[in-house]
Amino acid sequence: MPRPLHDLITAFAAFGDSGEGGVARLAASSADRAARDRLAQEIRQRGLSLTVDPIGNMFGAAVLAPASREVVLVGSHLDSQPTGGRYDGAYGVLAGLLAVEAIAARSLAEPGAARRNLALANWTNEEGARFQPSLTGSAVYAGSLPLEAARALRDADGVSLGEALAAIGYRGEGELPFDPVRYVELHVEQGPVLEQASADIGIVAAAWAARKLSLVFEGAPSHTGPTPMARRRDALRAAARAIDALYAEAEAAAVGAHVSAARLTVFPNSPNVVASRVQAWFELRHEEAAVAMALGARFLTQAVAAARELGVEVTIAADECRDTVALDMPGAALAHAVAGDLGLRALTMKTVAGHDALALQKRLPASLIFVPSRGGLSHNPNEFTDEPALDKGLSVLTETLWRMVTAPA
Amino acid sequence: MPRPLHDLITAFAAFGDSGEGGVARLAASSADRAARDRLAQEIRQRGLSLTVDPIGNMFGAAVLAPASREVVLVGSHLDSQPTGGRYDGAYGVLAGLLAVEAIAARSLAEPGAARRNLALANWTNEEGARFQPSLTGSAVYAGSLPLEAARALRDADGVSLGEALAAIGYRGEGELPFDPVRYVELHVEQGPVLEQASADIGIVAAAWAARKLSLVFEGAPSHTGPTPMARRRDALRAAARAIDALYAEAEAAAVGAHVSAARLTVFPNSPNVVASRVQAWFELRHEEAAVAMALGARFLTQAVAAARELGVEVTIAADECRDTVALDMPGAALAHAVAGDLGLRALTMKTVAGHDALALQKRLPASLIFVPSRGGLSHNPNEFTDEPALDKGLSVLTETLWRMVTAPA
Repeated sequence: MPRPLHDLITAFAAFGDSGEGGVARLAASSADRAARDRLAQEIRQRGLSLTVDPIGNMFGAAVLAPASREVVLVGSHLDSQPTGGRYDGAYGVLAGLLAVEAIAARSLAEPGAARRNLALANWTNEEGARFQPSLTGSAVYAGSLPLEAARALRDADGVSLGEALAAIGYRGEGELPFDPVRYVELHVEQGPVLEQASADIGIVAAAWAARKLSLVFEGAPSHTGPTPMARRRDALRAAARAIDALYAEAEAAAVGAHVSAARLTVFPNSPNVVASRVQAWFELRHEEAAVAMALGARFLTQAVAAARELGVEVTIAADECRDTVALDMPGAALAHAVAGDLGLRALTMKTVAGHDALALQKRLPASLIFVPSRGGLSHNPNEFTDEPALDKGLSVLTETLWRMVTAPA
Repeated sequence: MPRPLHDLITAFAAFGDSGEGGVARLAASSADRAARDRLAQEIRQRGLSLTVDPIGNMFGAAVLAPASREVVLVGSHLDSQPTGGRYDGAYGVLAGLLAVEAIAARSLAEPGAARRNLALANWTNEEGARFQPSLTGSAVYAGSLPLEAARALRDADGVSLGEALAAIGYRGEGELPFDPVRYVELHVEQGPVLEQASADIGIVAAAWAARKLSLVFEGAPSHTGPTPMARRRDALRAAARAIDALYAEAEAAAVGAHVSAARLTVFPNSPNVVASRVQAWFELRHEEAAVAMALGARFLTQAVAAARELGVEVTIAADECRDTVALDMPGAALAHAVAGDLGLRALTMKTVAGHDALALQKRLPASLIFVPSRGGLSHNPNEFTDEPALDKGLSVLTETLWRMVTAPA
């Protein structure tokens, strides 16, 4: 029995293979280029027309209704975290590719059924691992992030996203020649909700809010030996206190917030020099925006006060407040109906993680469909979803897209 | 009036000039090569014979007593921290150069007075900023660190010290053709003791003990969003707790220990992935070795317990216990007498910081002489000592060395 989805996922897992089952395929890296080149080949082989836009988003369009300017988009992202799994993002792109292929074939068999076109999308730098903020390509497409600002984002080595895209040959000049009317994204869940509920399909109704803060702690360099303890202005000690304060505030609030501090740069980062400058990235997530914002405010107050006691100044390098997002209700209802028609157990849920669908909802009705992930593992090479579960997601995606391209309006 | 010491210090501050008054001249970097090339030129111009040994130590020997195999060594280091001042290390090398020059001239004027030879030394990687541990070249010369182990030390990019020395042309093959009988090092103090005491000269009798620990915190990567808080195994949170525990233990003990955590590496260091691996470097210093060791033990217990609560394992990557060092008493007495003869206020003191003299004391009698440093600033571009104070140190050094090379035994 052919296993096209499984074979594609296996083939793409070779691009940036981390040797542990997962992938390290940072946006606009050579591994990303290899995956993009293969996707371009897969798109062309299926007779779809390839477009690469100025922020590197890739599209593979099937013209199902030549008289229509409308297009339904389906996709996700091929970039990954440094400790990425093989399904995160790639599943949505590759299942999307097969769904477009299946619908193009069905459309040929049922002439006139399709009332609009369909295109696959691979969005640039969804992860935000190499360039912050995340959801870059989809935000540019949605019009909420200016192209030039996105191209000017710089990685830790000072390379801009524009330069990196040019270097791998994906700073395009094309534009998808259709008006997008809907977007659907299939993704592995990145938490344990579906597994715990023994559900096949998650229909995402909304997303949690997130406050993403980047703080710079500025002290002064001094010798770690003879400098009297009271004279030190230790930026790393201040950052450690802030990390502690983050978890303490979240635990004291006991409102179910998810918080994290996962990235830190230390200067000069020598064992013998009291750190003079530390930048740290913090996230606070909650299903209510007001709670995330207030928690962030209390954390900031604590972090600044703790730093001041050490003679360390705190400046806010970034403060990104992502509101909750309500995804398109008719789209969710449609996907739910499809799952029911296919005899699958579907659950309406929220997403805590960011997804391209959330960025795109700012421009057009967007839908997000999850399949379970074993143990809820994500951004981990052991991320895993079995083939039957992946195939169920593909079935729901394909039928949902078919109904969208054939619907009267 | 000629200002040879000032002119030399200014000239050498150009090598690795950090643009803030200080230098960033990491061991075996291109800036270090430039400083070494200039030192080689200065050595040759003064008619001294240049030797570069297999770990890159540079020597400039003045043959004052051809019949003797004995040599008195004087020196310090030209490498710096990333946030180094222009005096730390360079002062001792350049004052040493002028002292050797002056003594060679005086020896010509007083034939037969010198009973042994004199050589300048520039020791490799004193700072330990690029390669850990510090005091590398002097420890190899003293016989306490095997040459091959020193050459195999790797920097954060995986470059070995041996490779780095070869790349700048300073992995030598020479050997200083004399038996060292004494070592004298002149250095700026790196704390506020002399300034507070209004003393001109510090005669270092002994060094504090230090325990230097490098710990690896091993958790698991996961998504910073949907992963339930209780399922995370957060290596960065564990490291932050350890940093907190370090200061808490030192403050609770209230025994005057100096402690620090100044270097940290985070993997994968992405804002969206709970850190799976963090390595942190800790130092605990006290004038009694037993106190530093016991404090280190209590810190380790706390750090491991705090990490376990988070599901994070701790392994010890390095645990370097540096005992107190008593420097040579007759050498200290001689320097004290010289300072008195020159009408200078000398203070007997201890050093908290490591110095090449401490490494060399394991092989031969070593002496360490300090001059004040404004505000005790060190490893900071604003490190400063005024010219008269620097000249006083040079005078004490020169006369001390003269008495050492002319002493009967």
